[in-house]
Amino acid sequence: MSGFGRIECQKLRSKMMSAEAAASLIPSGSVIGMSGFTGSGYPKAVPTALAERAAAARGAGDPFRVSVWTGASTGPELDGALARADAIEFRLPFNSDPVLREKINRGEMDYMDMHLSQVAPMAWQGFLGPLDLAIIEVSGVRPDGSLIPSSSIGNNKTWLDRAQKIILEVNAWQNEALDGMHDVYYGTMLPPHRVPIPLLRPDDRIGEPYFRCDPDKVVAIVETSAPDRNLPFAPPDDAARAIAGHLLEFFRHEVARGRLPPSLLPIQSGVGNVANAVLTGLLESPFEDLTSFTEVIQDGMLDLLAAGKLRFASATAFSLSPDAAAFLNANLAKFRDKMLLRPQEISNHPELVRRLGCIAMNGLIEADIYGSVNSTHVMGSRIQNGIGGSGDFARNAYVSIFMTQSTAKGGAISSIVPMASHVDHIPQDVQILVTEQGLADLRGLSPRQRARVIIQNCAHPDYRPGLFDYFARAGESSYGRHAPCLLDEALSWHQRFIKTGTMRA
Amino acid sequence: MSGFGRIECQKLRSKMMSAEAAASLIPSGSVIGMSGFTGSGYPKAVPTALAERAAAARGAGDPFRVSVWTGASTGPELDGALARADAIEFRLPFNSDPVLREKINRGEMDYMDMHLSQVAPMAWQGFLGPLDLAIIEVSGVRPDGSLIPSSSIGNNKTWLDRAQKIILEVNAWQNEALDGMHDVYYGTMLPPHRVPIPLLRPDDRIGEPYFRCDPDKVVAIVETSAPDRNLPFAPPDDAARAIAGHLLEFFRHEVARGRLPPSLLPIQSGVGNVANAVLTGLLESPFEDLTSFTEVIQDGMLDLLAAGKLRFASATAFSLSPDAAAFLNANLAKFRDKMLLRPQEISNHPELVRRLGCIAMNGLIEADIYGSVNSTHVMGSRIQNGIGGSGDFARNAYVSIFMTQSTAKGGAISSIVPMASHVDHIPQDVQILVTEQGLADLRGLSPRQRARVIIQNCAHPDYRPGLFDYFARAGESSYGRHAPCLLDEALSWHQRFIKTGTMRA
Repeated sequence: MSGFGRIECQKLRSKMMSAEAAASLIPSGSVIGMSGFTGSGYPKAVPTALAERAAAARGAGDPFRVSVWTGASTGPELDGALARADAIEFRLPFNSDPVLREKINRGEMDYMDMHLSQVAPMAWQGFLGPLDLAIIEVSGVRPDGSLIPSSSIGNNKTWLDRAQKIILEVNAWQNEALDGMHDVYYGTMLPPHRVPIPLLRPDDRIGEPYFRCDPDKVVAIVETSAPDRNLPFAPPDDAARAIAGHLLEFFRHEVARGRLPPSLLPIQSGVGNVANAVLTGLLESPFEDLTSFTEVIQDGMLDLLAAGKLRFASATAFSLSPDAAAFLNANLAKFRDKMLLRPQEISNHPELVRRLGCIAMNGLIEADIYGSVNSTHVMGSRIQNGIGGSGDFARNAYVSIFMTQSTAKGGAISSIVPMASHVDHIPQDVQILVTEQGLADLRGLSPRQRARVIIQNCAHPDYRPGLFDYFARAGESSYGRHAPCLLDEALSWHQRFIKTGTMRA
Repeated sequence: MSGFGRIECQKLRSKMMSAEAAASLIPSGSVIGMSGFTGSGYPKAVPTALAERAAAARGAGDPFRVSVWTGASTGPELDGALARADAIEFRLPFNSDPVLREKINRGEMDYMDMHLSQVAPMAWQGFLGPLDLAIIEVSGVRPDGSLIPSSSIGNNKTWLDRAQKIILEVNAWQNEALDGMHDVYYGTMLPPHRVPIPLLRPDDRIGEPYFRCDPDKVVAIVETSAPDRNLPFAPPDDAARAIAGHLLEFFRHEVARGRLPPSLLPIQSGVGNVANAVLTGLLESPFEDLTSFTEVIQDGMLDLLAAGKLRFASATAFSLSPDAAAFLNANLAKFRDKMLLRPQEISNHPELVRRLGCIAMNGLIEADIYGSVNSTHVMGSRIQNGIGGSGDFARNAYVSIFMTQSTAKGGAISSIVPMASHVDHIPQDVQILVTEQGLADLRGLSPRQRARVIIQNCAHPDYRPGLFDYFARAGESSYGRHAPCLLDEALSWHQRFIKTGTMRA
């Protein structure tokens, strides 16, 4: 960070200031669009300074709160710091910060959990109200004022275009080789002027490598040099390896039947340890020339690229462990032309997911015996993270796969329940359900057919008899017997957990 | 039906036979793809003959059952007749026949309720298994063997392409002026070969007016002359008029704010009396130059076309009352170039719904206080009809509207409940909720914010205090307070209805 560092635009250099000075420009009540997606590319200095300002204001009896919109999850310097200062009154579209999660679940703030592909269009449609300010991390400012994106794109294009004012954080920690790895599509419109998105393959470039930015809207530029969140992944455990094994067997089976091409179809993979284990499993699989069209590039995908199994990865963000981030930073030149980051409205666009025929693989909290999936609300009311992009991908995928361990909390929670306590994905959007116990192929099945195969193949043996018993009794005395249900008992497993700490009878 | 009537293909004339003879060609266990969508264009003779055959076989101790796939709902000569003969073992993707519904809800057969846009792709992907036979109503056979479609398109293109054998019903009741009113798109592929659907406006023609048909697969042609089902619509009652009024006020408001163009955006409207009332309401509205991109053309849409308010209607089927059908038949020449029927994978395609920015208006059975919508399962287990195209449109719409009367069964059922007993549409896909009581604008709201506006604006006054009371107590003692929920009480309203015949305490 010597002199003007990465800020090559003469006109904008006069806006350089400290994070504290930038934060002082933000009034309470502001609606702020911030960068950040799965802990990548979020602003790291101004939100922290803003949190300090809010804490000081609150200490002086002056509650200071803002609304925060992002791409998806960010890091402790943003959501954590602001939540601790009680400075967020409204948050969208996704969160995974533990401090913020607690605030939400204590009912102390409002949180709107959205389909990630819909945030930008809804903002453009005016459905979310005006956006006062954008705080965007970039990895450089070019002489013409255009911006080199950082390690995520998210909704940055939309925030830059829609916000009244802009604060930029230029992060020298981000690798300069990111320059050119982005594809920012400027062809979206409001209806009736929308046209087909001209993307036919995961590696098609359809946009520009830089963000356009009106320099007159920029009120502050802050230099930073801090790493992305970069949480470590747990090494795959036996359950994760078993899930990966069932899935690879399924892929082999589908290729053999001619229902999948030998190089599969573009892979979408949710974030997390199980998803990462599946990617690791593909390393040792016979599948070659793979592609991915997904939200995030995580460790497993990088390994597949490095091994030459994965030909190309399209995403909107990186989500790497510290080791993988260091590896990528050291070898970025080698991977530059094998990856592309796009706005999340494109990385998750239903039109593209359907056209490309993605293989969608997402995690879940619980599934019920008929195949409804709860991805978000523990015991029906306590938000974990959010639906994220799972709805964008699951409904439009070539084949939609959901996976989880069959139990949680050391066996106290069954992931297969009589009735989901909250529904994010309806059975129509769930073709394959996998746990370490096995795989349920739900294609072409009625609800009662689904129940038998889900209980038999996916439920943990400890909970299987209870589920079969419930299903049999529901079949005898349910109001309707299309999808038999005992309303007085359907949620009793969750009630028992809340009361006793276990779903076991 | 003189001589060869509408069968102009020399080669195919030799396949002409009676419905009974055609039915005799169908073995038990067959998987049959039939035409038919919302009571239009379904085969009327062969299914009835097949039902008679099945009844006779069963009488002789030989159970005769088949699997039936269609576009959507059909008529009593198909679903009703076959259900009465206990001749359907598996049915997809939609049903509204009361006899069949009873069989399903008694657990005597299997029914798979699907997104209507996904039936054709899933069939092509091989996910539904092989298709033995297609039975398709057409309005004529051309000299080259291509087929003039009937009053619905549905999945006919896919059934004709995929089936091993084909039986055609040529219905002389269908207006000859239908010739040229269809747009059959042959550009769909399996991934990785899918390309953008080249449709930019509801009136764009992207396909051919006729079905291609391999004459060697045709095993029988049957001439018929029977009308479509054509159920009458109830005239709009006060509640339906009030719902229409709230919606028109909303449209005016959105146009005034610049969030909708003055001619609105392409309208999608579910089937039924409330939907029809809204269309009737548009007749007296200031909106001009409207278009629709929807599943079915029903009476209200025909009135809008006749009045010159609606410029063009794209759909996959007609669904008209007997009076409207007679009016259309008498005046088809006048309307020919204002309407187009397409395959349901195109009429409901997520890519097109998102691109065109449809205003989606669908009915519901119940919504909960957080905005989850149940469109299908009465009391959580008894299937009414099916999700139909509502999921195709709601998730991808510019604005997704759900509407219903605030009570059913003379007030014994509240359409707004603490927790939906089944979920078809998640809150992310429900922007506007309307009852005769008022309209809830849920855009940009958190769950607790949504609950207050849904209860206040949409619930019936008789149920409002009970809902507010539940919500307040849930806010005090719920496991999580993001979307507060009392698990032991959430479904108690449904339990009370089943036990006492009313949800009233």
